[in-house]
Amino acid sequence: MTRQIKLGLSMRYLGYHAGAWRHPEVDPEGASKLSHFVRIARTAEAAKLDMVFLADGIGIRTKDEPPGALCRSAQTAEMEPLTLLSALSAVTSHIGLVATASTTYNEPFHIARKWASLDHLSGGRAGWNIVTSWSDAEARNFNRDEHLDYATRYERAAEFVEVVKGLWDSWDEDALVNDKQTGIFFDPAKLHALNHVGKHFKVKGPLSVKRTPQGRPILVQAGASDQGIDIAAESADVVYSVSQDMEQGRAYYAKLKGRLARHGRSPDELLIMPGITHFIGATRQEAQDKYEKLNALVDPILGLSYLYGQMGDLSGYDVDGPVPEPNNPQVRSIAKGLLELAHRENLTIRQLYTTIAAGFGTRLVIGTPQDVVDDMEAWVEAGAADGFNLCPPYLPGGMDDFIQLALPELRRRGMFRTEYEGKTLRESLGLRKPRSRYEGKNSGAIK
Amino acid sequence: MTRQIKLGLSMRYLGYHAGAWRHPEVDPEGASKLSHFVRIARTAEAAKLDMVFLADGIGIRTKDEPPGALCRSAQTAEMEPLTLLSALSAVTSHIGLVATASTTYNEPFHIARKWASLDHLSGGRAGWNIVTSWSDAEARNFNRDEHLDYATRYERAAEFVEVVKGLWDSWDEDALVNDKQTGIFFDPAKLHALNHVGKHFKVKGPLSVKRTPQGRPILVQAGASDQGIDIAAESADVVYSVSQDMEQGRAYYAKLKGRLARHGRSPDELLIMPGITHFIGATRQEAQDKYEKLNALVDPILGLSYLYGQMGDLSGYDVDGPVPEPNNPQVRSIAKGLLELAHRENLTIRQLYTTIAAGFGTRLVIGTPQDVVDDMEAWVEAGAADGFNLCPPYLPGGMDDFIQLALPELRRRGMFRTEYEGKTLRESLGLRKPRSRYEGKNSGAIK
Ligand SMILES: Cc1cc2nc3c(=O)[nH]c(=O)nc-3n(C[C@H](O)[C@H](O)[C@H](O)COP(=O)(O)O)c2cc1C
Ligand SMILES: Cc1cc2nc3c(=O)[nH]c(=O)nc-3n(C[C@H](O)[C@H](O)[C@H](O)COP(=O)(O)O)c2cc1C
Repeated sequence: MTRQIKLGLSMRYLGYHAGAWRHPEVDPEGASKLSHFVRIARTAEAAKLDMVFLADGIGIRTKDEPPGALCRSAQTAEMEPLTLLSALSAVTSHIGLVATASTTYNEPFHIARKWASLDHLSGGRAGWNIVTSWSDAEARNFNRDEHLDYATRYERAAEFVEVVKGLWDSWDEDALVNDKQTGIFFDPAKLHALNHVGKHFKVKGPLSVKRTPQGRPILVQAGASDQGIDIAAESADVVYSVSQDMEQGRAYYAKLKGRLARHGRSPDELLIMPGITHFIGATRQEAQDKYEKLNALVDPILGLSYLYGQMGDLSGYDVDGPVPEPNNPQVRSIAKGLLELAHRENLTIRQLYTTIAAGFGTRLVIGTPQDVVDDMEAWVEAGAADGFNLCPPYLPGGMDDFIQLALPELRRRGMFRTEYEGKTLRESLGLRKPRSRYEGKNSGAIK
Repeated sequence: MTRQIKLGLSMRYLGYHAGAWRHPEVDPEGASKLSHFVRIARTAEAAKLDMVFLADGIGIRTKDEPPGALCRSAQTAEMEPLTLLSALSAVTSHIGLVATASTTYNEPFHIARKWASLDHLSGGRAGWNIVTSWSDAEARNFNRDEHLDYATRYERAAEFVEVVKGLWDSWDEDALVNDKQTGIFFDPAKLHALNHVGKHFKVKGPLSVKRTPQGRPILVQAGASDQGIDIAAESADVVYSVSQDMEQGRAYYAKLKGRLARHGRSPDELLIMPGITHFIGATRQEAQDKYEKLNALVDPILGLSYLYGQMGDLSGYDVDGPVPEPNNPQVRSIAKGLLELAHRENLTIRQLYTTIAAGFGTRLVIGTPQDVVDDMEAWVEAGAADGFNLCPPYLPGGMDDFIQLALPELRRRGMFRTEYEGKTLRESLGLRKPRSRYEGKNSGAIK
């Protein structure tokens, strides 16, 4: 029997397909409505999924290139992930809440504080997806003309994560004594100032939020470059990956798991969850019809714009010709995967943008519940995945399809839980609580 | 008949009295629990209060001065205001949600985006309390050794607020057309890039959140200096003020309302709500007993620490002697009010720290429901207040006292609503929706 897998649900915008907002069942303004996300999160929780996840970009990344594309994209108006997941914390009880935040355009104290707060609000269900951002559009909202270079970004990210983890250790778990008789609120030996002084940050601490239910929020990473893998190997609990085929996925899995030992960690301390966009039907034809129905809702002008963010300006090329090398050096792993796919399957630009527009670059799987679960099982058996980050093409319908059609088959094969194992995300994921760096050290006494 | 007043509830920590956490009815770890704040916000909403409010500091401001003070303070462990209020947005329906954020340690794009998001999540109930921060403790969590100087801080704040307001105008109210037939999601003439280039910020925009239910979130200001008053007169919908007596309150009210015309605004476009900490009993003696019972829960070592943040280091002075001039030039209005109080009432340092420890510097009113409402009515009649920012000494008990004892008397006098006027905070406050700077300009077309 295949071992149990973990399942996250990515719920940004109205789903991952560029045509989602035009789907007859989709509320085109759902991404600005709490009720839309409450419906999704509660359904996912009833299905016992591990977590809901929100990717993020800090601004409208899509430019109006080619002209007329921007106004056809629903990926322009949304809510901010942290506020949204905080709201969901009050109306859910078990599902994990993973929000993205960029280390390039934030300060570590804010991130440590806000995610610690979300961990308390949710009773131990917070996760932080660590990204470094990549678009010039974001840079221009934060006092810059263009994006920070790759090396500086990752150097900053590594230090940022160290500071955040340090701040999360500020309070020992048993620091608060609350002794109403003596008037002692906390044991001063159990509160620690970080006193971090580094190249990018100087942060004294301590954090003004007590140690959180999970010890610290779950750390998620989603970069595929060597620098990204280093951060993941050192700190991440979960990696959302993008692999277009199983061999690629297996190589990535082996590389990342192999890197853990360098940091004194064992392979089961990090879960690798590739993204998948499913189109599921009772028959293969039905699944294919669902796929093509959505594709038909993508105007070519919008479709072309999907290649800009990943691969630079391709508007000078024939859309029915082959895919050239990317000319935007800031973007690596996603573009690389796509290029390989295009070359291997001999796709035209048009065919390529359809695969992106259909799932924003994640792997597409189209088939019956049996097909879909066979595929997942094969990845797990092959050592390419510990679970999956589900990226439905449209919401909530695409999620409902998965839950109603594929989940029973997964359960029949013993691959997915029927009840939550505990109350926290860490417990759902089967991960141990981290030890504090100060454990047994008694190094408190803040001046 | 006195006109209707507005009421906010300040709910940071466990109440405004330093002894609150030791009160027999108080959960000393309530400030880290969502359930504590849900109970408060729902009670406040059932009482039809206008808004709940969270003040903020980004770090533990209290140093261990004098030694042994810090571990006696419950104002060390809390949740972050924006995440907390976002959570409350999902379990309340009418009450306003006002969170503080500093213009000194944030970027305007984040603030514009997060508060716009909260406005959508709550269906039009978000407010931003604009502060510039003041403690070195915060500076040290954000790469600095000491706090930014006063002039730079306010200059940055003024530009910050301009940028945020500009970003909130990015989308015209009717920009989203959602035309599933043609594939046009929004009208490109109705999306505007800010293209701000200033001394402190360069922000291109547009914001990736559509125009919010209130047009924009409510802006609250809480500074009393000339620079603070300028920002308030130009932009604020609400001012939380601190005035220790009615004459002072009246002068401040007249000055601020008088300043509005310079910005083309009328006096009813800004509401002034002084803070009050109430101790209410069926008799005056009962009220006084409540006050003294809490005072007895403040250890002198903790009491002394309350003067550090406001007035600098007074530990070299005789606690039973007179109060000297403050030696910390960064802090002005609060220290000034306190000094005047100390001189006028001839308080010792010990007596002064008790008044602060009892309400963190807000005005204390101790008496029967009749006394308390007389006092409020007098302030309104005198032209010193449009309403009040209630700062209960402990929570939820101090709020319950106000709602159960004083509110019926306020209503008997026709001074407070029995039903909400609408769904948004702006409607509760009786304020008009702001016009967009682009109204009728058709200046869209983002490149
Ligand atoms: C599955 C996945 C999800 C991602 N989500 C985000 C995101 O939400 N926000 C973001 O700025 N970048 C996101 N990224 C981009 C990465 O953070 C990173 O910038 C990108 O992968 C390029 O870096 P790399 O070469 O290390 O992979 C994501 C990448 C992957 C693979
Ligand atoms: C009622 C009131 C509430 C305040 N709340 C905060 C707060 O939550 N966070 C903060 O950093 N400063 C807060 N302040 C401080 C002000 O933002 C400002 O820094 C201080 O009043 C000194 O500036 P001023 O001279 O303009 O008044 C508050 C001030 C007042 C009067």
